[in-house]
Amino acid sequence: MLKAPDHQVAGHQAREGQLGPLVDDSGRFYKPLQNNGRGSKELAFYRSFFSDPRVPHHIRRFFPRFFGTLVVEASDGSGPQSHLVMEDLVSGLDRPSVADIKIGSRTWYPHAKEDYIAKCSKKDRETTSLTLGFRVSGLQIYDEDNEAATGGFWKQSKKQVQGFTAEDVRGTLRRFASSNPSAATAATADEEPDCAFAAVVYGGSGGILAQLLELKAWFEEQTIFHFYSASVLLLRGNGATEAARVKLVDFAHVFEGDGVIDHNFLGGLCSLIRFISEVLCGGSDGRPHPEKSSAAENGGQG
Amino acid sequence: MLKAPDHQVAGHQAREGQLGPLVDDSGRFYKPLQNNGRGSKELAFYRSFFSDPRVPHHIRRFFPRFFGTLVVEASDGSGPQSHLVMEDLVSGLDRPSVADIKIGSRTWYPHAKEDYIAKCSKKDRETTSLTLGFRVSGLQIYDEDNEAATGGFWKQSKKQVQGFTAEDVRGTLRRFASSNPSAATAATADEEPDCAFAAVVYGGSGGILAQLLELKAWFEEQTIFHFYSASVLLLRGNGATEAARVKLVDFAHVFEGDGVIDHNFLGGLCSLIRFISEVLCGGSDGRPHPEKSSAAENGGQG
Repeated sequence: MLKAPDHQVAGHQAREGQLGPLVDDSGRFYKPLQNNGRGSKELAFYRSFFSDPRVPHHIRRFFPRFFGTLVVEASDGSGPQSHLVMEDLVSGLDRPSVADIKIGSRTWYPHAKEDYIAKCSKKDRETTSLTLGFRVSGLQIYDEDNEAATGGFWKQSKKQVQGFTAEDVRGTLRRFASSNPSAATAATADEEPDCAFAAVVYGGSGGILAQLLELKAWFEEQTIFHFYSASVLLLRGNGATEAARVKLVDFAHVFEGDGVIDHNFLGGLCSLIRFISEVLCGGSDGRPHPEKSSAAENGGQG
Repeated sequence: MLKAPDHQVAGHQAREGQLGPLVDDSGRFYKPLQNNGRGSKELAFYRSFFSDPRVPHHIRRFFPRFFGTLVVEASDGSGPQSHLVMEDLVSGLDRPSVADIKIGSRTWYPHAKEDYIAKCSKKDRETTSLTLGFRVSGLQIYDEDNEAATGGFWKQSKKQVQGFTAEDVRGTLRRFASSNPSAATAATADEEPDCAFAAVVYGGSGGILAQLLELKAWFEEQTIFHFYSASVLLLRGNGATEAARVKLVDFAHVFEGDGVIDHNFLGGLCSLIRFISEVLCGGSDGRPHPEKSSAAENGGQG
C-alpha cells in the first residue's frame, strides 16, 4: 500500500532502491527514522511541539500533523524500519505546485562540530542563503499549457536550484503564481510569467503572505525553539482554486531557544516576505516586472 | 578647543597619545578618517544616506547629523588630518548613560576577504553575537549613589563586555534602566537592579522600545543599505528626566542592499527588542527578575 510520493521536491527520494519517504493512499507520509541521530531529534521535536502548551493553537496548523512512529518495510528493501508518520501535505491537492524554501542565512547551529559548520557554511555561501536569508531547495509548478512537454510540471533540478541567483528567486516566486510558469525559457523567450494567480495565491486574508505574516508574528515572540535548516513549503493546487498553504518541515536540527528568539530564522522569513510582497505589489522602486532571469534561461536549456 | 570625549564607551579612544575622536564645546564630534578605506566608506555612507530621497524623514533622526569633513590636529599629535564632523550624540545630556550594542549575528559581509571573515567569525562566536544576534560593545550607566566610589558611572571594561553571557546582557539592560546600576555586585549582593526608570526609559510612545520598533518597521521594508558591524546606541540623561534616545552609529561597513532587506541586522534588532520587552513586561515565562548575572559578579570584583 505504500509508495514513493509523486510530489516530493527536495530531500532523499525513495526511488531506484534508495531509502526515502513513502506515502499511503489515506494521506499519510512515512519518513524513515535516520540512524545518525537526526531521526530521533526530529521525533523528539514533534513530540515536544505538539505537547507544549506555550505553542498557540493557530500556530500548530503550520506544522504537519504527527501520528507517531510505525515500523514498515523501508523503500530500499533493507527490511522493516521505523518511520515517522505524519500528514502528507500535498494529499487532496489537485496537481500540486510546491516550493521548498530553506529558511535562514545560516543553516548551522552554535556548538555544532567544526566539519559540519564548514560544510554548511560553504553551502550557505554558494547558494542564496547567505545573501537572501533563504534558498530554494526544490520546486515544481503545475504547467497546464505544457502538459505534454513537461509532464504537467515545470521543475528545476537540485543542481539548478542550488545555482539560483537573487533574480532567479524573484522569477521563481513569480512563476509559482503564474499560469505559464515555464514562460521566459528559451522556447518562449518573448513571454513573461503572468502572475495570473498572485492575488489569490499570495494575497488576501487566507493567502500565503497573510500566513507568513502570522508565522512571523510568532517568531518575533517565541523563544522556545530555534529552527536550523528547516524549510517553509509553499503549496497550492491546480489553478489556485484550492487554498494556498504554508507549512514548516524538516526538524532534524531544532534546538531549545533558551529565552532568545530565533533571529536567524526570523530574518530569513522577513526577507522571503519582502520578496513575495514585491511579486504582489510590484518592486519597491515601482518596477513591476523584473528582467528575465538567468534561471529561466537555464530552465530552457535544461 | 577640541578634546577627547568624556562619554565614549566603545571604539578607538583619543587618550595617551592615541588616535581617536574629539569633540568641541558646540556639540560636534570629530572622527578621524581612517586610512584603511573605512573612513572613506563611512564618509560615502553619510553623503548617500542624507541625500537619498528613499530614506523617510522620520528615519533620519536615528542617525547622527553630519556636517562634512574638516582637517584638524589629530589626537595622536601626528599633525593635521581629515575628520568626519558629526553630531556629538551625548551633547546636552546631563550625566549620560550609554550602551553601545553592535547589531547582527554576523559582523562580516559577503565578498569580504577570508582572513577578515575568519577574524570576525571568531569574535561573533566568542561573544553573544552568534547566539543573541547582537553584542554589548561598551557601557556606562550613571550611578548616583556611588558617585564617590565609581566616579559617577557604572562601567564595564572592553574585556568584561566581550565576556558577557545572555544573562549578563539581560542584567545590563535592567541596569540601564535602574537607579542602582551597580546593584548585585559583590559589595551589594543582596540588592537587585531596581528597574526604576524602565517605564520612562524603555516604555511609552517616546521611549526606547517605541523608537526601536520604528526602526524595525523600516528595516522590514528598506533594501537600500546593509549595515555590518554597526551599533545601536541607547542613550539617556540623569534620572531619565531627559528623553531616552536611540541612534545608529559606525558605518564603515555599509553596503548596497541590492533589493534585499538587511535580514542580518533585522534579526538582531528583533532579538534586542525582545530582550528589552522582557525588562519592561517581565519574562515570557512571567518571571520578573532574572537571576543575578555573572557580569554583576565580575563587575564587583573588577
